[in-house]
Amino acid sequence: MSRLLDPIGVELGRVEEALAEQVRKFAPGVTDYVGYVLGGTGKRLRPALALLAAGVTGRIDENHITLAVVVELIHVATLVHDDVLDEAELRRGLPTSNSRWGNEVSVLLGDCLFAHSLRLASAFPTTTVCQRISEASNTVCSGEILQNRKRFDLNLELEQYLEIIGMKTGSLFAVSCELGAVLNAAPPRVVKSLQGFGSNLGIAYQMCDDCVDIFGQEHQEGKSLGTDVKKGKLTLPYLLLLQHTDAGSRRRLGETIFRDEPNVRSELLDMVMGNGVMTESLLAIDKYIARAEANLAGLPSSVYSKTLRDLLAFVAGKSRFLLKEKVAA
Amino acid sequence: MSRLLDPIGVELGRVEEALAEQVRKFAPGVTDYVGYVLGGTGKRLRPALALLAAGVTGRIDENHITLAVVVELIHVATLVHDDVLDEAELRRGLPTSNSRWGNEVSVLLGDCLFAHSLRLASAFPTTTVCQRISEASNTVCSGEILQNRKRFDLNLELEQYLEIIGMKTGSLFAVSCELGAVLNAAPPRVVKSLQGFGSNLGIAYQMCDDCVDIFGQEHQEGKSLGTDVKKGKLTLPYLLLLQHTDAGSRRRLGETIFRDEPNVRSELLDMVMGNGVMTESLLAIDKYIARAEANLAGLPSSVYSKTLRDLLAFVAGKSRFLLKEKVAA
Repeated sequence: MSRLLDPIGVELGRVEEALAEQVRKFAPGVTDYVGYVLGGTGKRLRPALALLAAGVTGRIDENHITLAVVVELIHVATLVHDDVLDEAELRRGLPTSNSRWGNEVSVLLGDCLFAHSLRLASAFPTTTVCQRISEASNTVCSGEILQNRKRFDLNLELEQYLEIIGMKTGSLFAVSCELGAVLNAAPPRVVKSLQGFGSNLGIAYQMCDDCVDIFGQEHQEGKSLGTDVKKGKLTLPYLLLLQHTDAGSRRRLGETIFRDEPNVRSELLDMVMGNGVMTESLLAIDKYIARAEANLAGLPSSVYSKTLRDLLAFVAGKSRFLLKEKVAA
Repeated sequence: MSRLLDPIGVELGRVEEALAEQVRKFAPGVTDYVGYVLGGTGKRLRPALALLAAGVTGRIDENHITLAVVVELIHVATLVHDDVLDEAELRRGLPTSNSRWGNEVSVLLGDCLFAHSLRLASAFPTTTVCQRISEASNTVCSGEILQNRKRFDLNLELEQYLEIIGMKTGSLFAVSCELGAVLNAAPPRVVKSLQGFGSNLGIAYQMCDDCVDIFGQEHQEGKSLGTDVKKGKLTLPYLLLLQHTDAGSRRRLGETIFRDEPNVRSELLDMVMGNGVMTESLLAIDKYIARAEANLAGLPSSVYSKTLRDLLAFVAGKSRFLLKEKVAA
């Protein structure tokens, strides 16, 4: 994905420097933890969205670099907490904070990152950034709580799943785009389009990421996979598979899915491919890709809007690779 | 303590109503968790400080009620996370969030409360509230991280302990007082005095609370006790006891402390009382009480400043009850 973001390579470099500078601003004794979780090889996707939305609506200035840092700090804070909850051991190819220092440090570290992000957000002359960032953060965590409530629920519907991922992923993507435009005083119509784009891209991206958790290879992805089903979280292909299974057999299928053993995984894959679930999953993702494309329709053409389209194409391509290639195999 | 806060009883009632109103503002599916942790019988000490600082510096208006809600939400968020980390089962006489719904919901719930607090803070026309609240939150969590790093460290010094509790408790007490005054546009000297008062009271309060964890009775306090030593956290009396023990015997004493068995607890108590540690602990607490009193010296006399003094007297009295009564027994 990195080549894809070349048009904002310089600005992403400044975001990286600004992130590294934040480390020193934490209390001594906390800085080394912060340095570790902010380092690594994150995709910086939310910062990229903030910068691209800025590019689409005008200049990319220091305010946007700060905004990019703010959204990435929130994202990293949620990742640190997620890894505690998922008992994940790998993140971006490195041991997670919880596997290195335990859950206590990780919960508190996530809190510190979150607080620091809001501290940065409060340095803008307007309270809008604080307001929207805190709202989005609340939505992200509320989405995760809802997901938690629906664990092991074999009757989870596609609509509910979409609502959950819209909250837990779409909202931070959306606010990154939105505020990138707001800081350029873009007209409300443009702000709304970019916000919608972020939300739809986020939902498509999360569906794709959920498919990675099922069909991906750990060595390629650099993170623990299979954590969703282990935790009882039903995501796109399994969700659809269960919906196509009559109520009588659903319980047994659910047990097989949650057991997540390597030898049954290929059996499940056969089932997923056997009844059109793969195609249906792709259609669900494509629907959000199309919506995001529509959000871009009214915006002026530039290298930045082109890059937003390239991001969409990347997610669409990855989903196809994960799902369709399996069907073809 | 409740009678003591009678002078702001009406305003604390409005804070309670405002807290109850917040519940509806969370996402459906999250509200019942929020209602549970915001209900109960919290002392609302930080709200009281915000209101009293307002009273000392002028009117207590709607802004102060909101500020009181903001600081209480931050406090409850940290309690929810603390209870996860301490594996505590009781809080204010009721099962903790983690014992009812598990760690996952509790970590995310704490995050939601924190985010919502910052959302409320961003509704003030000035960014100062967001800024100082996020800074204080960061300090609270950083203090807890430092405490975590010093677990089972038998050479922890009193100064380090004081720094940690100044961060984890003093900072939110301080910012509650500070912003109560700031919202009344009080002069910087007055703001600083009240901030100092909050910090010193907070440190004294935490030392007292740490003594409760060692010497208190669960049925009286309505919360799990003995969690500090179980988690390797050395607090006031044990810290001083270890400092009076020669390096050779310190390891064995440490093991006894951390084992925290009922039958060795009375033996430890004898040791604590035998060499002046109780008196020394009281002196440490009294030092911060005296500092807090000095902070109040330049402020105008009113029912509000009297109540701040009453709070100090309450903490001093409780410490004496816990420590001196044991010596006398």
